[in-house]
Amino acid sequence: MTAIRTVEAAEYVGEEVEVRGWLHNVRRLGGVTFVFLRDGWGTLQAVTEDSAALAPLDGLALESVVAIRGRVTANPQAPGGLELQAPAVTVITPVTDAPPLPLHKRQLNAALPTLLDHAVVLNRHPARRAVFRLAAGTMAAFRATLNARAFTEVQTPKIVASATESGANVFTLDYFGRPAYLAQSPQFYKQIMVGVFQRVYEVAPVFRAEPHDTIRHINEYVSLDVEFGFIDNHFTVMGLLREVMAGIFGHLSEAYAAELALLEAALPVVPAEIPHIHFAEAQEMIFQRHGVDVRGEPDLSPQDERWLGEWARQEHGSDFLFVTGYPMVKRPFYTHPDPARPAYSNSFDLLFRGTELVTGGQRLHRYDDYLAALARAGYPTAPFETYLEVFRHGMPPHGGFAIGLERLLMQLLALPNVRLATLFPRDLNRVTP
Amino acid sequence: MTAIRTVEAAEYVGEEVEVRGWLHNVRRLGGVTFVFLRDGWGTLQAVTEDSAALAPLDGLALESVVAIRGRVTANPQAPGGLELQAPAVTVITPVTDAPPLPLHKRQLNAALPTLLDHAVVLNRHPARRAVFRLAAGTMAAFRATLNARAFTEVQTPKIVASATESGANVFTLDYFGRPAYLAQSPQFYKQIMVGVFQRVYEVAPVFRAEPHDTIRHINEYVSLDVEFGFIDNHFTVMGLLREVMAGIFGHLSEAYAAELALLEAALPVVPAEIPHIHFAEAQEMIFQRHGVDVRGEPDLSPQDERWLGEWARQEHGSDFLFVTGYPMVKRPFYTHPDPARPAYSNSFDLLFRGTELVTGGQRLHRYDDYLAALARAGYPTAPFETYLEVFRHGMPPHGGFAIGLERLLMQLLALPNVRLATLFPRDLNRVTP
Repeated sequence: MTAIRTVEAAEYVGEEVEVRGWLHNVRRLGGVTFVFLRDGWGTLQAVTEDSAALAPLDGLALESVVAIRGRVTANPQAPGGLELQAPAVTVITPVTDAPPLPLHKRQLNAALPTLLDHAVVLNRHPARRAVFRLAAGTMAAFRATLNARAFTEVQTPKIVASATESGANVFTLDYFGRPAYLAQSPQFYKQIMVGVFQRVYEVAPVFRAEPHDTIRHINEYVSLDVEFGFIDNHFTVMGLLREVMAGIFGHLSEAYAAELALLEAALPVVPAEIPHIHFAEAQEMIFQRHGVDVRGEPDLSPQDERWLGEWARQEHGSDFLFVTGYPMVKRPFYTHPDPARPAYSNSFDLLFRGTELVTGGQRLHRYDDYLAALARAGYPTAPFETYLEVFRHGMPPHGGFAIGLERLLMQLLALPNVRLATLFPRDLNRVTP
Repeated sequence: MTAIRTVEAAEYVGEEVEVRGWLHNVRRLGGVTFVFLRDGWGTLQAVTEDSAALAPLDGLALESVVAIRGRVTANPQAPGGLELQAPAVTVITPVTDAPPLPLHKRQLNAALPTLLDHAVVLNRHPARRAVFRLAAGTMAAFRATLNARAFTEVQTPKIVASATESGANVFTLDYFGRPAYLAQSPQFYKQIMVGVFQRVYEVAPVFRAEPHDTIRHINEYVSLDVEFGFIDNHFTVMGLLREVMAGIFGHLSEAYAAELALLEAALPVVPAEIPHIHFAEAQEMIFQRHGVDVRGEPDLSPQDERWLGEWARQEHGSDFLFVTGYPMVKRPFYTHPDPARPAYSNSFDLLFRGTELVTGGQRLHRYDDYLAALARAGYPTAPFETYLEVFRHGMPPHGGFAIGLERLLMQLLALPNVRLATLFPRDLNRVTP
């Protein structure tokens, strides 16, 4: 007797096997009973006309943990074309309470708070877990793309001594009686690590104490961070980001077809070269095409981004668009200016279907430039002392980007709320489950 | 002109190339000057008798960022057997301050506080970064071993609502005016995720507010966590852990030979079956062999572990030893008891060369068992409400383990302090750099 995963059944047609998992559904049609077992990877139906064979299930609720033995049989009418015949059921963990929502329905029809309150069970729903499987695939493809380019993975500290980048929006911690903070991003550490490994990436949680209650904000999320040295400028960084996006979507389309089909997600094509437009040209284009004069505004509005997304689709047939050269005034102090137009930066946003998906750019790399930038921003240098030390000892021109895993999934899957792209979201009002 | 990484030089013998990196060292011997360039992967020497060619380096300190062009030439006397001849040097980022310690010496001779205070620069030292390269390799091999066994990667929240496992030793956070906590481990979440994916792993930081100032404690570390369902008992978990350890050491020995040689590390052989001994037998053996009666003690002391490590080496020729069946009284409340001897648990420690390296075991999986265990431990059930919900809805027998990445590296490399196994350690007195 071979214990197999449900998704391996096709390799065992004609054989007796055992599958183990959760009682996903039971349906009776006339004298025939269909038992659906869900394991960690898929579902498989068992079918019998012998009600005595199913006696162990009497009185049990769905989600009971069971093992079913039977003969794998091809049946074009079965979901997936396979079923177990002549099943024998063993109960491993009996359950008597019904799950908070029926997990075997195609969709979980409930308000968001219900979905999140009961996530410890409802994340078992096939459509929910398909999202999280895609999260795993995205992380794996991100790493594989960068490993193939001689990047080194790092893990940098999440407890930090000072609220560095913005000062605000940082969680404060009691660190043995002194205040410390949760890292808003690995920005400084990944730059420091360029001095060690030249090309680095990190996949890790980041923490933002932003008191925003929107569909796009959560206060803890997974950041896919990249930083590397010896770049020409931000266009070198954009070139790598294009490779990373192609690596992610290529891997998902190859290895996660079932999840994408279940979620009715249409994967974008990443163009060989993603079109780009300078911030100032983008504002001019919006004025010309839409008659709205946003020229001189220091940033793009969501409406501006949607218009730019439309333009990229119509003019370039692309779901992706780089907007380059955001004004320095809206970028963090470590951003490298455009040497030719110093009011603009060597930075970019990657828009995906009209919404910002990734931010990146070239950073300052000279010690004196940091001192000047901190002074200009009105920051004291003391909290940056250890960060600044690295620039006194030789840093190459470098840059990078950060992809928010949950936002990528939200946009890719057209989820109505970013909270649905993470297992157990943290927001203004929620730290459980 | 091809820009190459130093470690690719062997593929370019006879060709003109450019390498980019840091000025690692300059040595003059008679009329010959040797310039050592270090990039993110290795070092390469350039050699010339033409002092004018090196004029750009005049007045510059080591760690200046440079590019060197030259012809790759085989020379058995050069480190690595290769050198760049007829070099032309371009300075990318000039440096005038000497690094806090010389990075080109074979060893960084300084007290630990100096090493840690200046880690942003000193982590560039080849021996330091070899440690961190091995950390990356360990994480990669851990994931690869589990991916090959149909495990799914998860990322679970680090901000949590209650100090769950021990109550003490947890960092408290100001979460929008309310207290929240930093996760001491993903224990509950990884168990919950067994209900979703059946087999899961996570690589992520954990936070321990233990006020211990020892060579083996840091307050933030990287935990390699595994949890999976449908086990027989803790021996199933030990079987997987053996595969994971073999996967890690196998990958390191294949892909990180240079780093291991530099650090003079002898990789252990993971036996086809790691020997195991029950806790009670271990105490009896210690009494018989060493005359020290620790029978009845609820835990093993470090000396006990060293004796057990000796015994495993002498009796089984193994660097590894599983000690099974630790008394329930010393294990967390979710530990599954040994059904035959309920005072002992279905848990284990993996000792490596006489020191505990990994802890794991079988967990309770029945709702009623949790209620009883919490009552026995004197815990209220309210903080565990969402955790308990998952056990009302069907959990299989399951278990797992957690490997502390830094302790693994410390023991493997015989580092004198765990702080040297992490980029930027956090301890009682240190949150910088």
